[in-house]
Amino acid sequence: MDFIKKPEEIENRSMQIIEPYLKDLNLTVEEVKVYSRMIHAAGDVDYAPIIKISKNAIEAAKSAIKSGSNIYTDVEMVRTGINKRTLSKFGGNVFCKIADEDIKKIAENQGITRSMAAMRTFGKDLNNSIIAIGNAPTALFEVLRLVIEDSIKPAVIIGIPVGFVGAADSKKALAEQSQIPFITVEGTKGGSPIAVAAINAIIYLLDNSR
Amino acid sequence: MDFIKKPEEIENRSMQIIEPYLKDLNLTVEEVKVYSRMIHAAGDVDYAPIIKISKNAIEAAKSAIKSGSNIYTDVEMVRTGINKRTLSKFGGNVFCKIADEDIKKIAENQGITRSMAAMRTFGKDLNNSIIAIGNAPTALFEVLRLVIEDSIKPAVIIGIPVGFVGAADSKKALAEQSQIPFITVEGTKGGSPIAVAAINAIIYLLDNSR
Repeated sequence: MDFIKKPEEIENRSMQIIEPYLKDLNLTVEEVKVYSRMIHAAGDVDYAPIIKISKNAIEAAKSAIKSGSNIYTDVEMVRTGINKRTLSKFGGNVFCKIADEDIKKIAENQGITRSMAAMRTFGKDLNNSIIAIGNAPTALFEVLRLVIEDSIKPAVIIGIPVGFVGAADSKKALAEQSQIPFITVEGTKGGSPIAVAAINAIIYLLDNSR
Repeated sequence: MDFIKKPEEIENRSMQIIEPYLKDLNLTVEEVKVYSRMIHAAGDVDYAPIIKISKNAIEAAKSAIKSGSNIYTDVEMVRTGINKRTLSKFGGNVFCKIADEDIKKIAENQGITRSMAAMRTFGKDLNNSIIAIGNAPTALFEVLRLVIEDSIKPAVIIGIPVGFVGAADSKKALAEQSQIPFITVEGTKGGSPIAVAAINAIIYLLDNSR
């Protein structure tokens, strides 16, 4: 069995394969890097036309990371995947509450999902933060409600929930608002690795050791 | 913003939406449950025709879980996503070595990926285990080498690495061998949530509390 075993070679070869699918999209050099990691994480070039990055989103995310902003995630898989060692060089940390006992109780009492209860509980901590949602449409809907009703202002929302119930609608609502810079994927596709890929791509834009 | 907020309703509605895409595939009731969770995790009905479950794989995985077998994963995101609380009722645990310092050194010394070094280091612990690979083709290639060259016999291999470099080939090699029951996805698509969905679907088949 002959195959490429060196991590750098695998990454470079993968980026070469993805490149042709991006050439007609008028992307900046930094956008190409974010798109490429997202597409690689899904193994699916059909992501190329459905990834949506608002004009100022990469810049806003970079500024937030550089200033030590925290990242708030909907599920543990997103927290796990984010390169926390590199993030911590800038002072930021990653938080997720979905597995907390008090969140479970709030969710049961209110008849809502745990990820939604978790976002609601973060509340004002989300100001100037990066929000990374890779699973739950309800979490993204709740964040958008916090923005509109409670005037919460995250620095950027990476909103890439997945599935057939609410995901497409929640991402459409994200893309249609103009208050908060965002990265998303149209339709039902998405997931934790795609959200993680977007975040890590931006972290690596700032980390010259890579 | 009006949307479904109750977890059971979200799950049931999602399974209903997926059902029509499975009806011509001649699946067993248990296979339908595994397929549905995998498709839901990707938000992508195009998975329906490319999921491949060997004839005895679900039965083999159920037996292994029931007898307290451990699960070995290539990356931390797969470990994170597996429902360990329910798994532990049967006595099993989940192991991942990719972040270990000694694995990093082995990988650097041998010019291989860390996930490959991790699988090699597990060695005989993989006998009668469940292997869940959601990211690294090199980890799956290494497991197949251990099966062929070192006569390691896992109970089942959930091999769903993702990407454009080696993933499709490694999964083809998995599907073409006949020694070990397997669950896989043809081509470049896959990822940690898809591997996690397959495992959790099987754990839930055994857990009557759900």
